[in-house]
Amino acid sequence: MKALVYDGPGQRVWRDVPQPSLREPTDAVVRVDAVTICGTDLHILKGDVPTVQSGRILGHEAVGTIVEVGAAVTTVRPGDRVLVSCISACGRCRYCRVAAYGQCLGGGGWILGHLIDGTQAEYVRVPFADTSTHHLPDAVSSEAALMLADILPTSYEVGVRNGNVAPGDTVVVVGAGPIGLAAISTAQLYSPSQIIAIDLAQSRLDAAKQFGADVTIGAGQDAAEVVGELTGGLGADVAIEAVGVPETFELCAKLVRAGGHVANVGVHGKPATLHLEDLWIRNVTITTGLVDTSSTPTLLRMLAAGRLDTTRFITHRFALAEMEAAYQAFSHPNDTGALKVVLARP
Amino acid sequence: MKALVYDGPGQRVWRDVPQPSLREPTDAVVRVDAVTICGTDLHILKGDVPTVQSGRILGHEAVGTIVEVGAAVTTVRPGDRVLVSCISACGRCRYCRVAAYGQCLGGGGWILGHLIDGTQAEYVRVPFADTSTHHLPDAVSSEAALMLADILPTSYEVGVRNGNVAPGDTVVVVGAGPIGLAAISTAQLYSPSQIIAIDLAQSRLDAAKQFGADVTIGAGQDAAEVVGELTGGLGADVAIEAVGVPETFELCAKLVRAGGHVANVGVHGKPATLHLEDLWIRNVTITTGLVDTSSTPTLLRMLAAGRLDTTRFITHRFALAEMEAAYQAFSHPNDTGALKVVLARP
Amino acid sequence: MKALVYDGPGQRVWRDVPQPSLREPTDAVVRVDAVTICGTDLHILKGDVPTVQSGRILGHEAVGTIVEVGAAVTTVRPGDRVLVSCISACGRCRYCRVAAYGQCLGGGGWILGHLIDGTQAEYVRVPFADTSTHHLPDAVSSEAALMLADILPTSYEVGVRNGNVAPGDTVVVVGAGPIGLAAISTAQLYSPSQIIAIDLAQSRLDAAKQFGADVTIGAGQDAAEVVGELTGGLGADVAIEAVGVPETFELCAKLVRAGGHVANVGVHGKPATLHLEDLWIRNVTITTGLVDTSSTPTLLRMLAAGRLDTTRFITHRFALAEMEAAYQAFSHPNDTGALKVVLARP
Amino acid sequence: MKALVYDGPGQRVWRDVPQPSLREPTDAVVRVDAVTICGTDLHILKGDVPTVQSGRILGHEAVGTIVEVGAAVTTVRPGDRVLVSCISACGRCRYCRVAAYGQCLGGGGWILGHLIDGTQAEYVRVPFADTSTHHLPDAVSSEAALMLADILPTSYEVGVRNGNVAPGDTVVVVGAGPIGLAAISTAQLYSPSQIIAIDLAQSRLDAAKQFGADVTIGAGQDAAEVVGELTGGLGADVAIEAVGVPETFELCAKLVRAGGHVANVGVHGKPATLHLEDLWIRNVTITTGLVDTSSTPTLLRMLAAGRLDTTRFITHRFALAEMEAAYQAFSHPNDTGALKVVLARP
Repeated sequence: MKALVYDGPGQRVWRDVPQPSLREPTDAVVRVDAVTICGTDLHILKGDVPTVQSGRILGHEAVGTIVEVGAAVTTVRPGDRVLVSCISACGRCRYCRVAAYGQCLGGGGWILGHLIDGTQAEYVRVPFADTSTHHLPDAVSSEAALMLADILPTSYEVGVRNGNVAPGDTVVVVGAGPIGLAAISTAQLYSPSQIIAIDLAQSRLDAAKQFGADVTIGAGQDAAEVVGELTGGLGADVAIEAVGVPETFELCAKLVRAGGHVANVGVHGKPATLHLEDLWIRNVTITTGLVDTSSTPTLLRMLAAGRLDTTRFITHRFALAEMEAAYQAFSHPNDTGALKVVLARP
Repeated sequence: MKALVYDGPGQRVWRDVPQPSLREPTDAVVRVDAVTICGTDLHILKGDVPTVQSGRILGHEAVGTIVEVGAAVTTVRPGDRVLVSCISACGRCRYCRVAAYGQCLGGGGWILGHLIDGTQAEYVRVPFADTSTHHLPDAVSSEAALMLADILPTSYEVGVRNGNVAPGDTVVVVGAGPIGLAAISTAQLYSPSQIIAIDLAQSRLDAAKQFGADVTIGAGQDAAEVVGELTGGLGADVAIEAVGVPETFELCAKLVRAGGHVANVGVHGKPATLHLEDLWIRNVTITTGLVDTSSTPTLLRMLAAGRLDTTRFITHRFALAEMEAAYQAFSHPNDTGALKVVLARP
Repeated sequence: MKALVYDGPGQRVWRDVPQPSLREPTDAVVRVDAVTICGTDLHILKGDVPTVQSGRILGHEAVGTIVEVGAAVTTVRPGDRVLVSCISACGRCRYCRVAAYGQCLGGGGWILGHLIDGTQAEYVRVPFADTSTHHLPDAVSSEAALMLADILPTSYEVGVRNGNVAPGDTVVVVGAGPIGLAAISTAQLYSPSQIIAIDLAQSRLDAAKQFGADVTIGAGQDAAEVVGELTGGLGADVAIEAVGVPETFELCAKLVRAGGHVANVGVHGKPATLHLEDLWIRNVTITTGLVDTSSTPTLLRMLAAGRLDTTRFITHRFALAEMEAAYQAFSHPNDTGALKVVLARP
Repeated sequence: MKALVYDGPGQRVWRDVPQPSLREPTDAVVRVDAVTICGTDLHILKGDVPTVQSGRILGHEAVGTIVEVGAAVTTVRPGDRVLVSCISACGRCRYCRVAAYGQCLGGGGWILGHLIDGTQAEYVRVPFADTSTHHLPDAVSSEAALMLADILPTSYEVGVRNGNVAPGDTVVVVGAGPIGLAAISTAQLYSPSQIIAIDLAQSRLDAAKQFGADVTIGAGQDAAEVVGELTGGLGADVAIEAVGVPETFELCAKLVRAGGHVANVGVHGKPATLHLEDLWIRNVTITTGLVDTSSTPTLLRMLAAGRLDTTRFITHRFALAEMEAAYQAFSHPNDTGALKVVLARP
């Protein structure tokens, strides 16, 4: 079969590789029907994630069809259409037993396209299939469901739920890339009074408006002043960091009101400065986190009920074999306007 | 009357000042029966708290007897013995209405001995008396109750409750001064499996053991290694910072397990480094906070029921007029072994 | 001034009474600009609420203008336009300090139009004005705000929040009168997947659809069967009782899934049967409650932000002097289609 | 092997049966080292649980040694000493994924000694072994651990945690049999101010005192009056029902304060009367539930840390072959004083 193989920093190839097969009784082999590319894949290709070894098939998001299951798999069977979650869950360890699958100690967590071969391929072996895949109802299209593999649960769990967004709140989202837009989108599930998007690029702020931001703050504006004016001087109830650099995290800590929440979603490579000399007295809660995908069943129910529009994130569509073109489009969003790209089996 | 007056950095005098009187219909004037000194008073005297003006009477903790109340005060009356909380609460603002009195926007918060004259005096004017004092049942001694003015609710709310201590947890307390010991003491209300105290001074670690720490880690020991061994490599469920310098905060962030809580109680004067490059993926919750004293009624109930021993914090007792000697003892704990000192009317 | 006086069972008169004046330093006198009638007022008039004495001015909902305040009132002043809450809060007692104002032990709770003279009058004395009234921003009309005096916070707090409605849930609302419709309306703040309204009258089910119900179940339908079909056999996540008779409560307990919530909002006059022989094993949570109006500031923020449409509940508008006509319309909803009626000063 | 077989109402026999073997790849076969008898087993023998078929081996609590595991079992292996939980968990269904194992939809829940053969035997087949057994640390004795199979997690989860017991609370426990005593015992993990035990038998009240009750109320006393006196007229914060008849449930609803919690633990065979005409206005929360055993790992940690004394529940010890004598002792507690009996392999 064909797959997108990481051949070391800067090297990706869509090439022939052996088809995967079952190794454990809890495995499934899944035919990939639709797959997408994540910003994390670009990081890997830059060499930023040293735990990814050369020769690894990338990709941790897919919708596919079960081809074969191990003897212990009971909840999915060949022919089932499933969502393959970016997080695999052993379902047995201390963390999995409290639905903190992202921290799985039993061989799961983020492994697909990282520690084992991933989903940017014609077929993929999925460990712990019972607890790492989700049945798709007929009413849900594969590309709509694909957005629930990572971006939607990540922004919802790590941004909106960790941030404790509640009806009537003022929510600031710093960073209006795909994850920030998904946070803007899922924050609305809790009916905040106003969502304020902050970014340097006007094109992303325009997107933020389309995804539901009420106010945008761009380059050259004093964010603290604007947020202060919009909140009677208090600051935001929730500030969601969706970039991953020290400056944006520190901005969040500055914009949040006493008693408010800073929810970090961004992937950071450097430490930030925490101004405890200001914050120690302000009753602030700061959270970090990898997605657990514990919300995926709920998001799927909402998708099936027509309560969630996820296809709006999809800006480009390709055939599976056009993997190289898809990477080109996705890795140059300023030129292409790409948010999420979908590669589908015809 | 006599009072302890701050006369600028390094200058404190126990001298004659005018007796306070009612200014607002919500005020009470309270005769001070017992008062203590807080580490914050020492900070003020060093000149670290510029919002305290020269001429201010210090002190924000007292037990006393109501002498006079304003026309709008309905729940306390002359002759009542009350606890004067370190936090005054207007009871009307957005924060007070959710019991976040420490963030009061209506003229309360930490004002006694800070923005208005305080409790280290023979009499004190207490604003918002209905919502800033607490009746004392006969069964509770004044000096036992005095420990509920600040140190116990601070460690309990900002350390134990913000840290989400739960039965079976491993709790690390960094810093075994009075606040750290109070955190060790109140953490036990939730029956953790083990409490680990960390400090550089052996004398404080000895005290930690007496207050209920199961394990102590001192100078020259690798805290991460010890905590790892005691938790099967996971880290602590809760790490409580009770010092107030960057190193101890950073140690807490290092010792906490994925999914755990860091509760900052220490008063910080400098920023700390937040290692988001490690923490972004670890589902950590970090909290800060000034005490709200929302737990004071509960702690009082426990004191009355014999469930809380607060007199163990009191190492020295003085007459009110011995204010200078009390300050001497309290400000040299390494020599005197002082934890909390009590000055009482004979 | 004129006021609507209860003169014993079946007797109501719009007649001259003395104008109210300040009694306590925490009182305000408010000129009533807009007032409404509650189903509870009809109960009182039937003689169902024996704690209401003959001669009492009815009404516990109003928007008005502050005329005069006592010496201790600090947050509102003459000329301010305010919402008068159905719940008065002393702000000092054990319950008020945890925002459970409905259970106030200090002389508040539901007192207006019940234990003291109420709002169906040209002027009303409001005790504890600082904690029992809410400033209205200019952007909010008086009649829109008036819906936050009782019906909206009641359905939101006692129905939606007690019921723990969450994104993706199936919510059943039993009873589609004004309170049930308000529950349907405010449940949507948490983005449930589907809202199912149950009532015997087709006209009320039509209204339920307009207020956002996705499915309706009427007379002659087997509610358990329909809810089972719509939930894969599990039952509803949340069942909200909005009628107040044993049968509807028992229906809620039958429709809820294992692990779900039954939130009682209805006012009951008789006991219900609790089928513990079925429920003991099903992890069900049942809640009851009088509104606290702790959510009123949040709902006001949402109203100001255009996130809440409350005027849709208003079906009839009258001048204040047309009190009798307003009662006629409101007490015959089957003929008039009345949901909420508003009486306003011209 | 020998096993205790239910041969229809009133009929139990310790007789030879075939030894169990693996059926599914997720199964384990466990050699029973210690087993106990539950009140539920007596109900089954009376014929009260018609889902138990004649020929069934009873028992749902055990400590044992893994003999054999299926191909998909990864976390336990032959030779491991484990606790066999009263609840089996598929680990894959909607309920298991939120740790509500008692409501498992995938073939688990309470099945041992109910729908499949149980633990009162020399060997037992345990389905879903990875998620239905718990490793025992060396420091924990088998008989101490055995108390975590059912009685401790049941009283802790369904009584104490559902009841939301918190530091400083007044907790009423109605019924001082084994489950009530376990509720008294585990309530103390949250440091309530006072625990009040209510029972008709003085011997059980004496036991309640020994297990930590502060006050007892016996036959002929007016419980509402006593609880009122002990709570300043408010009522209990939490009332735990540990009997299972309508009268005791109704007593709990009467004793709880406004805003308090009634946690039902008892197994009921008949409906109770819910006095909604009193309760609708009182903000009461009522919970029911089968144990999930989600707390078992935490309780095990506490046992290993010496924080929990479970052997105090064990009044009688027998060899496994003395099953009949053990049933005799356990089924006549008034004569034998039996709380829990342990049968152990020599």
